[in-house]
Amino acid sequence: MPTSNVNFRVIKSEKYTIVHFELSKAITPSELREITPPKIDPMKGIVLSGRGPIWLYCYLAHYYHPTKFVATFDPRLGGAVVTQTHDPEHEVGEIIEIKERELIL
Amino acid sequence: MPTSNVNFRVIKSEKYTIVHFELSKAITPSELREITPPKIDPMKGIVLSGRGPIWLYCYLAHYYHPTKFVATFDPRLGGAVVTQTHDPEHEVGEIIEIKERELIL
Repeated sequence: MPTSNVNFRVIKSEKYTIVHFELSKAITPSELREITPPKIDPMKGIVLSGRGPIWLYCYLAHYYHPTKFVATFDPRLGGAVVTQTHDPEHEVGEIIEIKERELIL
Repeated sequence: MPTSNVNFRVIKSEKYTIVHFELSKAITPSELREITPPKIDPMKGIVLSGRGPIWLYCYLAHYYHPTKFVATFDPRLGGAVVTQTHDPEHEVGEIIEIKERELIL
């Protein structure tokens, strides 16, 4: 079974799933081929969260593109920005407010 | 005509197109609805480059997903990391070496 330095945590909310990652050490690009992002409900949107390189985010955003929408958490904004959507209720550029406590287990 | 704080520069290479952006001031999420990324040849890969928020990168990576591959330039690696690909010649996680001079007009 492939191992990975990317540890995922899934936090379910009513309308979206938060996929938060933590890196146990710096990730190298080739590790993108080894990570196994968690399965989530594609009928809900997804919020990506964690400290990591832009290419990890772009990889994960593409990985989850069948989901209802993809947003990335930006701590400076106190919320997640929708970057792609199939959901008429959410538009690109919208900020979905995420309370810090939602990111904690 | 919508205006935008995101200024794009297109640098054509044999196998890929570099789309480099510069922000004239900090971008806000709602501006994602106003930017008009440059048209490029979808038969080539694309390299995204510039200093900006993760959600801008994820938006642009999704915008260009019909292209042959999408890679994001990481100055710490001296190259661009492939995050999605339809091209059997390039795999996810591969680093495409980009010389600094390629990013200069």
